[in-house]
Amino acid sequence: MRIGICDTTFAMVDMGKIAIDEIKKHCSAKIIRYTVPGMKDLPVACKILLEKEDCDIAMALAMPGKMPIDKQCAHEASLGIILAQLLTNKHIIEVFVHEDECEDKKELYKLVEKRTREHAINVVNLLYHKEKLIKQAGTGQRQGFEDVGPIKI
Amino acid sequence: MRIGICDTTFAMVDMGKIAIDEIKKHCSAKIIRYTVPGMKDLPVACKILLEKEDCDIAMALAMPGKMPIDKQCAHEASLGIILAQLLTNKHIIEVFVHEDECEDKKELYKLVEKRTREHAINVVNLLYHKEKLIKQAGTGQRQGFEDVGPIKI
Amino acid sequence: MRIGICDTTFAMVDMGKIAIDEIKKHCSAKIIRYTVPGMKDLPVACKILLEKEDCDIAMALAMPGKMPIDKQCAHEASLGIILAQLLTNKHIIEVFVHEDECEDKKELYKLVEKRTREHAINVVNLLYHKEKLIKQAGTGQRQGFEDVGPIKI
Amino acid sequence: MRIGICDTTFAMVDMGKIAIDEIKKHCSAKIIRYTVPGMKDLPVACKILLEKEDCDIAMALAMPGKMPIDKQCAHEASLGIILAQLLTNKHIIEVFVHEDECEDKKELYKLVEKRTREHAINVVNLLYHKEKLIKQAGTGQRQGFEDVGPIKI
Amino acid sequence: MRIGICDTTFAMVDMGKIAIDEIKKHCSAKIIRYTVPGMKDLPVACKILLEKEDCDIAMALAMPGKMPIDKQCAHEASLGIILAQLLTNKHIIEVFVHEDECEDKKELYKLVEKRTREHAINVVNLLYHKEKLIKQAGTGQRQGFEDVGPIKI
Repeated sequence: MRIGICDTTFAMVDMGKIAIDEIKKHCSAKIIRYTVPGMKDLPVACKILLEKEDCDIAMALAMPGKMPIDKQCAHEASLGIILAQLLTNKHIIEVFVHEDECEDKKELYKLVEKRTREHAINVVNLLYHKEKLIKQAGTGQRQGFEDVGPIKI
Repeated sequence: MRIGICDTTFAMVDMGKIAIDEIKKHCSAKIIRYTVPGMKDLPVACKILLEKEDCDIAMALAMPGKMPIDKQCAHEASLGIILAQLLTNKHIIEVFVHEDECEDKKELYKLVEKRTREHAINVVNLLYHKEKLIKQAGTGQRQGFEDVGPIKI
Repeated sequence: MRIGICDTTFAMVDMGKIAIDEIKKHCSAKIIRYTVPGMKDLPVACKILLEKEDCDIAMALAMPGKMPIDKQCAHEASLGIILAQLLTNKHIIEVFVHEDECEDKKELYKLVEKRTREHAINVVNLLYHKEKLIKQAGTGQRQGFEDVGPIKI
Repeated sequence: MRIGICDTTFAMVDMGKIAIDEIKKHCSAKIIRYTVPGMKDLPVACKILLEKEDCDIAMALAMPGKMPIDKQCAHEASLGIILAQLLTNKHIIEVFVHEDECEDKKELYKLVEKRTREHAINVVNLLYHKEKLIKQAGTGQRQGFEDVGPIKI
Repeated sequence: MRIGICDTTFAMVDMGKIAIDEIKKHCSAKIIRYTVPGMKDLPVACKILLEKEDCDIAMALAMPGKMPIDKQCAHEASLGIILAQLLTNKHIIEVFVHEDECEDKKELYKLVEKRTREHAINVVNLLYHKEKLIKQAGTGQRQGFEDVGPIKI
């Protein structure tokens, strides 16, 4: 199995390194890393990893800024990432941490690390353990934050 | 006939289970279930079910959160789901229940269940009884809520 | 010639019936009707009519609700309808009547009927009489309302 | 060379006629005209001209109204026009004049005529004189209004 | 190697010239320049450079205005640029400088020049030195402005 890891020079945390560290704890898939300037370069970079580097799945890692233009870029990048998946029939797990999700830089770093690691496990499960995800269906998972859990009735 | 059921670990209700329960009451189609982390993973998952698992139709089940970013993700997911249908010439019935449609969690659960079951019947009708839908044309159907009915003149 | 008519069970007026009635007054094209649950199911339904049922043109008929989510769904459906046309090189005439275009239900019904009938004639003209549309170029046509006419200079 | 001219019956000015008049002053390309009901019908009409009528370039001419729904339709049409270009590898020059760009109808007419004529020249340059456009790079061209010119440093 | 440079006559700075000047300092790739009227003409122009002129990468250079319609056009152009990349599996580095990023025209010129030059180096690195980008991953690069650097923990 081959996993593509795409991240950006724009981000303020080395997200690719964290993702690779976590994935290696859980499987022995070959990892191909690809760093691009910004968020909007991620869709084609992921598609190149999935099609030309034969990756079975990819991660798209980024930290959108807090200005309206950053939100718009994140939206455009997300649409591109969805389209790249549809054109390849392979998953790209998007891990975007918005700069304004935390007020404090250290909290932001922790959030980036936690969300990246938790989504790295999702990547491993999508590749090797799809049944684990079915068991988690409807359980209110929240990557980076505490899970909210299922509604109790 | 084969029906694909896609849901998420993000949702707070096991929507896939409800959909499967309802579909089994109405037909004997083979059901393939696929659970992904979040809404934006649904388009490619549905396309994989339609193309690689030979499903004739799919359901995309999710519970978007109440923050603006959740609304944007739902919009992106919806566009991806429409595109997945256009690339496969097969229907994907989207069942999204927004967390802010109800104030109370138990009401929310009931809405999720009712909308999911009613759309599961739409799926069965699209597969087996298209004429039933023509009879309902213009009758103000509202899945999850009371139907508003046709305008009387 | 074959004309596809797509409408929804969500609408509060039987738009498909009105469209078919009008088209039959003007030509003898074979009409294939397809009713789906909601607006967002229209793009693929139209594409199926154009590709699998060999229709030469289609109509996509719907009545978006008045909530913001309804506006967003209409936007998503419209993008899908444009894409379906680009993938088939055939026209799909979209007839959307928003619930908040009129305050009164009976006025709304009249608007739905008038807009549907006027666009049905556009469909016939696109199929049989393209020169009629060229004659109307720049004349401020408004389906459902009074035409505004050309700017007089 | 063949040039496709697409306009609408919704517009209040015969934009196609103006475009054709201007193009004929500058070249002897064959011109194929196609009038559709509204803006959202332009993308596929242009694509049909580019693919089925073998046009080398097309113009998409429209006058979006002043209501929010008109702005959204213009946005959807623009996305479709961009996509039509990407699927054909040919240019479609979009000439949209928004009804609220001028307060007075006669001013609006003048703006429509000026912008249409100036873009018609862009079409001719893209077909026959690409080097002229390179010479204008970064010179602040504004079709329909006075050019703002380059920033002087 | 071949690099495509796309810019506009709408911009108030000759961005193509700046990009070419910078690229030539760093490599001997053949450069093909293509100037179009406006932002929304960039996606297909880049795709033509990548597919018909065999460019390995392209730059899309523009200066969106400050009105809401300009923001929307920039959004539409960006989506088209992302799609052009996905359809070619090649990068297009987008360099958009919004007119309202600076209050003063001379500051704006400096920003345009700095961002264009810094992104030109990204283009060279994507073509020849991908490992340099991996070294910059997560270092908070900001083209045109001072880099914000990585979060220190």
